[in-house]
Amino acid sequence: MKKSALQAARAAYQPKLPKALKGSLTVKEGAATQSVADQEAIKELFPNTYGMPVLTFEPCSEKASYPAINVGVILSGGQAPGGHNVIAGLFDGIKAMNADCKLYGFLLGPGGLIDHKYMELTADIIDEYRNTGGFDIIGSGRTKLETVEQFDKGLQILNQLGIKALVIIGGDDSNTNACVLAEYYKQKNTGIQVIGCPKTIDGDLKNEMIETSFGFDTACKVYSEVIGNIQRDCNSAKKYWHFIKLMGRSASHIALECALQTQPNICIISEEVEAKGQTLNDIVDYIAGIVAARAADGNNFGTVLIPEGLIEFIPAMKKLIAELNDFLAANGDEFAKVPQNEQISFIASKLSKENAAIYTSLPEGVARQLSLDRDPHGNVQVSLIETEKLLSEMVGRRLAEMKKEGKYVGKFSPQHHFFGYEGRCAAPSNFDADYCYSLGYNAAMLIGSGKTGYMSSIRNTTAPADEWVAGGIPVTMMMNMERRHGEMKPVIQKALVKLDGAPFKHFAAQREEWAKNTCYVYPGPIQYFGPSSVCDQPTETLKLEHL
Amino acid sequence: MKKSALQAARAAYQPKLPKALKGSLTVKEGAATQSVADQEAIKELFPNTYGMPVLTFEPCSEKASYPAINVGVILSGGQAPGGHNVIAGLFDGIKAMNADCKLYGFLLGPGGLIDHKYMELTADIIDEYRNTGGFDIIGSGRTKLETVEQFDKGLQILNQLGIKALVIIGGDDSNTNACVLAEYYKQKNTGIQVIGCPKTIDGDLKNEMIETSFGFDTACKVYSEVIGNIQRDCNSAKKYWHFIKLMGRSASHIALECALQTQPNICIISEEVEAKGQTLNDIVDYIAGIVAARAADGNNFGTVLIPEGLIEFIPAMKKLIAELNDFLAANGDEFAKVPQNEQISFIASKLSKENAAIYTSLPEGVARQLSLDRDPHGNVQVSLIETEKLLSEMVGRRLAEMKKEGKYVGKFSPQHHFFGYEGRCAAPSNFDADYCYSLGYNAAMLIGSGKTGYMSSIRNTTAPADEWVAGGIPVTMMMNMERRHGEMKPVIQKALVKLDGAPFKHFAAQREEWAKNTCYVYPGPIQYFGPSSVCDQPTETLKLEHL
Repeated sequence: MKKSALQAARAAYQPKLPKALKGSLTVKEGAATQSVADQEAIKELFPNTYGMPVLTFEPCSEKASYPAINVGVILSGGQAPGGHNVIAGLFDGIKAMNADCKLYGFLLGPGGLIDHKYMELTADIIDEYRNTGGFDIIGSGRTKLETVEQFDKGLQILNQLGIKALVIIGGDDSNTNACVLAEYYKQKNTGIQVIGCPKTIDGDLKNEMIETSFGFDTACKVYSEVIGNIQRDCNSAKKYWHFIKLMGRSASHIALECALQTQPNICIISEEVEAKGQTLNDIVDYIAGIVAARAADGNNFGTVLIPEGLIEFIPAMKKLIAELNDFLAANGDEFAKVPQNEQISFIASKLSKENAAIYTSLPEGVARQLSLDRDPHGNVQVSLIETEKLLSEMVGRRLAEMKKEGKYVGKFSPQHHFFGYEGRCAAPSNFDADYCYSLGYNAAMLIGSGKTGYMSSIRNTTAPADEWVAGGIPVTMMMNMERRHGEMKPVIQKALVKLDGAPFKHFAAQREEWAKNTCYVYPGPIQYFGPSSVCDQPTETLKLEHL
Repeated sequence: MKKSALQAARAAYQPKLPKALKGSLTVKEGAATQSVADQEAIKELFPNTYGMPVLTFEPCSEKASYPAINVGVILSGGQAPGGHNVIAGLFDGIKAMNADCKLYGFLLGPGGLIDHKYMELTADIIDEYRNTGGFDIIGSGRTKLETVEQFDKGLQILNQLGIKALVIIGGDDSNTNACVLAEYYKQKNTGIQVIGCPKTIDGDLKNEMIETSFGFDTACKVYSEVIGNIQRDCNSAKKYWHFIKLMGRSASHIALECALQTQPNICIISEEVEAKGQTLNDIVDYIAGIVAARAADGNNFGTVLIPEGLIEFIPAMKKLIAELNDFLAANGDEFAKVPQNEQISFIASKLSKENAAIYTSLPEGVARQLSLDRDPHGNVQVSLIETEKLLSEMVGRRLAEMKKEGKYVGKFSPQHHFFGYEGRCAAPSNFDADYCYSLGYNAAMLIGSGKTGYMSSIRNTTAPADEWVAGGIPVTMMMNMERRHGEMKPVIQKALVKLDGAPFKHFAAQREEWAKNTCYVYPGPIQYFGPSSVCDQPTETLKLEHL
């Protein structure tokens, strides 16, 4: 593996740890906990892991001794910067407990546990991956650990390798499944502990106890770098409107954070669109209005940030998608036989009148995308919908009408961008490098303390790392019951952008100014070696939430 | 203007200068020069600026005294990282000569000179823009300075402001025009000097005397950062083929440099396609062959870099585009009246049989793009053609055929990216910050030495900045005669990728290995504060050319 100069120099970085994880520690237990909702139902489903206390690690002078154990680790779902540091922290943590501990990585996600594909992660291998982006050390995958057959299959290999604890690094669904697995292994008295780690660039796995998921910081900084570069170009050439779609699944955390970092002219927040019951036309009118107002000032350029999940949050589109999802789930085989040039009219003929009208009013490409392949959850693949082109096309049409009405004088030339894969595997920022390493090291300490059904938790993350608070949060505490594929399931509540939260309010208070004037900020690329003011800042979201 | 933390920290960077520009200097003149071709014709067109010697500045102990003069500066054409540092260097250079010198910037490109739109650039303003990306200090534009009327209009404002020298920062065409202007102002005895500076991210303005154009270094590093991130994602998820188109107009320098930095599985070089007379199908077969070979090894993922100018270099496509250009230039008005759904058949009916066959075989979207708006030079806007989607669609079809023939077993899921605006206005790398500042400072010294018709030149750029060679190259030296819009014109020869040059040969020697195995390199983001091995490296192209 040929290393870049930066990778070589960055390998030597020693991530910072919270004080409690720097030496011997003691576990402080809080009071018994409850799930955020549906307490009775969750308690019944998790009799062995429900109600456990929040844990906080504190430094202590007494040196504990730990047995040598074997630990397994799994990367689950989409990549996020810092995954390798979670594994490095876990490795260093178990080695600090007992030098004879061993770490096994299951390959290509949860599927590796079921299919018994694994490798031992030795010091040589770990050292190659410290402070690097990607999940390529063992790969990741989207297989869901859900069935008893899978759990039993996993148990075979865990027993065979003498693994006493399994760490699952994943998003909300993966951590839910980790908890189901913890409950099952505890109920069966297997002696195998299961610990989760909060991963996702989307930022939608957070709550009162989990301040942020790892990778969000780095991914947003990479997107903000390129958005800033585009804005500087936009403000130099003064001739294009750039429509920039950003990854992030349903939630708009990434778009909001990037807006806070770069101050674009427009940023759409899906959660607000839904709360206000806006239609696609409302959004188009809003954008066209700002384009026209800027044109009146002689500024025929600007930037628009669009969260990838937007379409699903427009109530009318949501109803359409829901009917499409139901129709295709039930009639997928029939639909598969329809010739391509008849697909749109075929679907329109099967929808309710209201939805058929919306469906056929969409540009053909978008209508087609809405009926394409579904993701493994059975949902429309929102990231395939070119919302950035849909919006700019509709805005262009609206401006043409306004021009006829004498309400717009200007030139509208759009450019389109979609950023997603550019940020998921970037080398972690100092924040993510430290946070991830701490999460992994902390997971080792949870294992050493004999815990299961916990999520590794590092809090107080806007303070210097030394003051971060390490510990564990019972996963059941974050759960409620939700309908998934027609069944009520225990799941970790997904965190959407809160319209009464400080980050959104800060944005909303400034957006009129940003729309009218040109207030672009150019964050530039992530720096690893410079002054702390440049290298060690958390996200604006985190700073505002902690004010 | 709210500054990002990095921008604030980076403002203090003091760009490095060649030894000769650090104090008093003396001018060493070489022998008389000749144009690279068509000497008689060029000499006739440039009687006053032809044949001048190459200049080299050397340090000297004697302090010269310079009169206070006013200088004008113009940014011409597309943005490139470092433009602000050229202006800062020019400002510092004229102030070092005489503190009473003044600098005027003409607004939004050469148009500002003609329309008499300008601003004085004072120390306060300059300081706001040091080491930043973008051309927003005075804006840029694509108006071409070509006619005597324009020259005379410019002369009015130059005389009005008492400007004795004009620095034009631009690409090959802008520098050609700068020389025509220099010749005209000299012939008219206006006493106004004109100096050019080599700018373009495309890297196609270089020759024996101009080692590289500014901005190429930074832009390629930004693209390589995101390509590296995508490759790390690709190698973690192991399920997508990423088709990545890169800006760069006709030449493939950017794609080649990014390939050298990131080692993708495939990189197409337009100049090679042309030299080998390859068809679109040849390229598709080449890519499909590599996809199939990797699939046979179980690797259903990979990366393909595509230069934006590719289509024009495929001889059959070139003929088609040439006929399209001619047809639309002559029949644009008629074509404008054809309804959209009849456009393709209309054009096909007007083309030669051979070209009509190719035109109608293209996916509809591509055929449509080929007949869209032209750029100001009257040519197909290659950057609008979604070559990355065209190729992946055709590769997908080819693989489906190969599957039927039993020659391919695998899954082909493409993703598409186009990078251009992301890199043109990035904050300059140390290399570009130093190089640009030196080019600007050096331009001031050429002015101080009374020169006109010269391009600012900094050579020996792979050595530490202290050892760089400063001086001037007569623009006529780089010229030859070429047919443009049906007329023979004196122009600076555009530098395409040389197939016998070290960068291409280095790439060609390794590409089979990169195609079969996964040899990705992850350069990461540009660093401004770290070790010199990370922060101060020139491009691979430059290093290989200087071996």
